[in-house]
Amino acid sequence: MHLPYGAFSTPGSDVRLGVRTDDGQVVDLRRLSEAGAVPDPTGTLRRPTLNAFLAEGPERWADVRAALADVVGEADGLPLGDVRLHLPFEVADYVDFYSSLHHAANVGRLFRPDGEPLLPNWRHVPVAYHGRAGTVVVSGTDVARPHGQYLPSPGAERPVFGPSTRLDVEVEVGFVVGVPSPLGVPVAASAFADHVFGLVLVNDWSARDIQAWEYQPLGPFLGKSFATSVSAWVTPLEALAAARVPPPEQDPPPLPYLRDDDPWSLDLRLELVVNGTVLTRPPFAHTYWTPGQQLAHMTVNGASLRTGDLYASGTVSGPGADEVGSLLELGSHGFLEDGDEVTIRGTAPAAGGGTLSLGDVRGRVLPACPMSL
Amino acid sequence: MHLPYGAFSTPGSDVRLGVRTDDGQVVDLRRLSEAGAVPDPTGTLRRPTLNAFLAEGPERWADVRAALADVVGEADGLPLGDVRLHLPFEVADYVDFYSSLHHAANVGRLFRPDGEPLLPNWRHVPVAYHGRAGTVVVSGTDVARPHGQYLPSPGAERPVFGPSTRLDVEVEVGFVVGVPSPLGVPVAASAFADHVFGLVLVNDWSARDIQAWEYQPLGPFLGKSFATSVSAWVTPLEALAAARVPPPEQDPPPLPYLRDDDPWSLDLRLELVVNGTVLTRPPFAHTYWTPGQQLAHMTVNGASLRTGDLYASGTVSGPGADEVGSLLELGSHGFLEDGDEVTIRGTAPAAGGGTLSLGDVRGRVLPACPMSL
Repeated sequence: MHLPYGAFSTPGSDVRLGVRTDDGQVVDLRRLSEAGAVPDPTGTLRRPTLNAFLAEGPERWADVRAALADVVGEADGLPLGDVRLHLPFEVADYVDFYSSLHHAANVGRLFRPDGEPLLPNWRHVPVAYHGRAGTVVVSGTDVARPHGQYLPSPGAERPVFGPSTRLDVEVEVGFVVGVPSPLGVPVAASAFADHVFGLVLVNDWSARDIQAWEYQPLGPFLGKSFATSVSAWVTPLEALAAARVPPPEQDPPPLPYLRDDDPWSLDLRLELVVNGTVLTRPPFAHTYWTPGQQLAHMTVNGASLRTGDLYASGTVSGPGADEVGSLLELGSHGFLEDGDEVTIRGTAPAAGGGTLSLGDVRGRVLPACPMSL
Repeated sequence: MHLPYGAFSTPGSDVRLGVRTDDGQVVDLRRLSEAGAVPDPTGTLRRPTLNAFLAEGPERWADVRAALADVVGEADGLPLGDVRLHLPFEVADYVDFYSSLHHAANVGRLFRPDGEPLLPNWRHVPVAYHGRAGTVVVSGTDVARPHGQYLPSPGAERPVFGPSTRLDVEVEVGFVVGVPSPLGVPVAASAFADHVFGLVLVNDWSARDIQAWEYQPLGPFLGKSFATSVSAWVTPLEALAAARVPPPEQDPPPLPYLRDDDPWSLDLRLELVVNGTVLTRPPFAHTYWTPGQQLAHMTVNGASLRTGDLYASGTVSGPGADEVGSLLELGSHGFLEDGDEVTIRGTAPAAGGGTLSLGDVRGRVLPACPMSL
């Protein structure tokens, strides 16, 4: 069973945690807790977000999952269409990696046509930056086209100000940290399962014109910080045992702190859908730096983890022209228009055959708000 | 009166809010609230952090400040030396600007000796990036030298891994957001006082070798995220009325969204002290982009504000060689050694003459933790 976790409400109710059943019902975790159907001595399943439960760690996650597997078949569920879904966890810090070799090379070819596609550090450093945690929104939230500064044409002397004309998406997978770590103590790649609870799908909305003008030398800021959408359902890593695959070969071999005795990636098949049309099918398994390596890198300088930290893979692009994770790379489609509906969805191999749905992350582009400036 | 806010504990007590008196005592706000000496119908002064109080907004801030001015002279205070100080607010998002022209030009000359000191966007964009909120620590917290990847010499082909050998500081001023703003609605520079509660001193510790190798193309990450120290006392903006000064001239004139009918900077005099020796005296008043412009820029794309957002000025460097805010720029001192004690302190003109102390942000460099990697 998949049994992803989310937060939901019904008209007039407060927000509570739920688990999604394989037949598309939402089972109320607060009710199961109150009825004693799942062990919940700490009451963490009766909260409005997952954070307190996530902080309890892998044994507790396994106990609750085992109990749910026994009882959800009998429990009264609500049809998915009858509930409103909320952000399932409070985001602490949000980090975005740049871990797809194909994406980094595609972008390098576009921005530096005469140079090497990859920068010299890329095969050594799992490059990443911090994004804005406060503007991570749940799937279904509309996204207004952002205003900002950008150059009206390449090489122009002065920027103009207005709504972005190059609004893009980035298809990503995000990992949700449950168990914190103390300041000063690096977390090894092999300790992934001790800290990371599960994953969400991520749309890292990007205004390419704003980003291109602002990003030297401190990286992306307003070109990304207007919104980052995540799926409403968090898939526990435990549900993805059948999706584990060997990661790509790494050349040169990574520095020792990035080595993992038992390295793995996940065979997640993603789709980028705009206005109902599947534009691309990015395959996560190709991602060069693994989720474990990302965790090890993010903490090797002693940075602590907090419950609710979210770290995303960066744009997932495979080798094929129809496997890219952004419109910038696709080229043929152009950028987003007002009113466009963007959906990122994904599946993974399920235990015992078949696939499980990772849900989706949806968002509609609203016109830029009127500004008097 | 200055009356900055902090959070403190005494041996065996829990953490409570306090206000510092001009004679160096800490007055317990929970006790004043319980005694009815300050109006506190919402109980926000009885919490362990400032966040709930900060969210209440400028009228409430003014009411409490006025009441405190009347009663702190009579209240029993604790000597500063008898209390332990804690992080006074939970940090939501942490943004770091790059708003000192002298700093940006100094760094530009070091990194691009043959080019223009300033990048083409600098006089148009208040450049900034998001830092790691989870590793913002209170003054007095020791900071272990971080491990990371860096090039052993300029132009080397492969990085090495080890403790940073170029550990630096950045002298900064940080602004603390109290009142949130909704997603999608920019906040004008002129609305600064409706949202921003006060300021802290900031030491943005920086590992220059790690930063130099990792920062292309997404900006600083592990070179900064191991620790950012803030002063234990938050100075309310209301206490700084006498410190307002005209900001520097801006050429070219900024885009309309960055204009402010009544622009201002603050005459804050900072000092960088290492092992008891004053190395430099950075003057904040020279900072090119004002605190109001930083606020307007950070939200012009629709990014929301949350209570506890912290945005820092970036390294404060004045025009003089002894006015720089980092060891990188100073040159003559070299980088930090294990055991070094770094203090950033500051003063501002007080109402009625004299100066008020902005407190300090202190930290000692610990040797890198042993790592088996």
